[in-house]
Amino acid sequence: MADKSKRTRRGGEKRQEGRQAAPVKTPNGGRNGGRIWLYGNHAVLAAISNPARRKHRLVLTGDSARYLEDARIEAPADVVAEVMDRRDIDRLLPPGAVHQGMALQADPLDPVTLEEVIGRNGDEQVMVVLDRPNDPRNIGAVLRSAAAFGAAAVIVPDRHAPEATAALAKAASGALDRVPLIRVTNLARALEQLKAAGFWCAGLAADGGQTLSEVDWAARTALVLGAEGAGLRRLTEETCDFMVRIDIDGDADSLNLSAAAAITLYEVNRAHRSRS
Amino acid sequence: MADKSKRTRRGGEKRQEGRQAAPVKTPNGGRNGGRIWLYGNHAVLAAISNPARRKHRLVLTGDSARYLEDARIEAPADVVAEVMDRRDIDRLLPPGAVHQGMALQADPLDPVTLEEVIGRNGDEQVMVVLDRPNDPRNIGAVLRSAAAFGAAAVIVPDRHAPEATAALAKAASGALDRVPLIRVTNLARALEQLKAAGFWCAGLAADGGQTLSEVDWAARTALVLGAEGAGLRRLTEETCDFMVRIDIDGDADSLNLSAAAAITLYEVNRAHRSRS
Repeated sequence: MADKSKRTRRGGEKRQEGRQAAPVKTPNGGRNGGRIWLYGNHAVLAAISNPARRKHRLVLTGDSARYLEDARIEAPADVVAEVMDRRDIDRLLPPGAVHQGMALQADPLDPVTLEEVIGRNGDEQVMVVLDRPNDPRNIGAVLRSAAAFGAAAVIVPDRHAPEATAALAKAASGALDRVPLIRVTNLARALEQLKAAGFWCAGLAADGGQTLSEVDWAARTALVLGAEGAGLRRLTEETCDFMVRIDIDGDADSLNLSAAAAITLYEVNRAHRSRS
Repeated sequence: MADKSKRTRRGGEKRQEGRQAAPVKTPNGGRNGGRIWLYGNHAVLAAISNPARRKHRLVLTGDSARYLEDARIEAPADVVAEVMDRRDIDRLLPPGAVHQGMALQADPLDPVTLEEVIGRNGDEQVMVVLDRPNDPRNIGAVLRSAAAFGAAAVIVPDRHAPEATAALAKAASGALDRVPLIRVTNLARALEQLKAAGFWCAGLAADGGQTLSEVDWAARTALVLGAEGAGLRRLTEETCDFMVRIDIDGDADSLNLSAAAAITLYEVNRAHRSRS
């Protein structure tokens, strides 16, 4: 067990003020205007129960319709459930989509801004910041772990992250309708904004100065993870307050992004629980 | 921080003897006879450097060939590197395969038995046991985390687990050539065999009696994880020595299998490191 007294951080006392960061707007470009298909039980049920999600078509196999009936889950008022053959659902979706007899055509969620989320939550906020994630399934998996460990949002750079596609929603297994995915135009500026709001920004790197379990995790924490292989961009790393590492036996590329995120979220959540 | 004195386990003193379990053979049926394509840098480079892997064709883009040359990685003696256009590589592989300009046609690895791995390693062995994993990508991701945290093997039931396909190998990112994937005919019997060899079998469940960080992890540990949603089969759970849980804020299905495995492997590895 690490000695608590040894737990240090870069940057000394956390400033609660700091320079006023420019507001970070999430663009609402035309590319988000298109409807998307969500599929799989978890993704569809989470979207159904999300009042902020505009739904268009709900297609179900007979089995799935009975399942919803038995579970007393009502189809949303704004959409009619169409019961159809499994293969007809196949034809509506990308090839190979594992839809489990359930799909929902819906609008993408309205963009959420960083200011809204910072303003919305309390003192125990954790955010996950992904620097250039390249695989939509990885983003989905991170959203899912973020939901499991009560993180307030996942933040991605707008230009360097894949769209909130069906593959992302499926990997998120419903978390896309529970945890805001915030797209920002400038990641370093978003980090500055978080720091100004009292967040400690912890970057993950193979050569981080402390291990995850050595850090005395603060109440407001932003966990900053880079793309696999490439790691954090220089400016992203320089904007972080301190760097942490996960002790592994393999080389730096050994963990995939979603595994690294799951472990980091677990450790911060554990620290928060042990204090409360 | 949890009180160490409270750390208990089911089953009392660990028996090092116990009844002799029947040897678990990994079948080498005809279905493993076919050649497979491995693709992506990590998977291909790990296979190239694995002398136990029989290779047939190595196809590369010009860029990848130059990369190997610069990194002084030699193509294996038993295979000729064919430089070709990216699109020609596309045509050899499943649609959408992210091959990064590198693919290797090879034989599946010869099956490894549980006895071999138990006999091969020392006192700090960790094994991961997956009860009916349903997604080859999940198995690959678990192999990758197993490699990162120095686990000795990943064990899956032969009838209920997908084959070691290209998708599995890609998700494993080279770990398929580093960590044995052992297929057993009877999972409960394999657990008995592990217990007879001095392993504590820890099952993961949402209602586990202890949290991961409360357990005083033994040197030889088998981590038993169930399929998402379904969890562990009754017999699997009954064969475990004790059950552990990951404290989460969401419902039991919140973590995906590979995230749960990564967190569990991390926690056991951390406990082993802090003792050594």
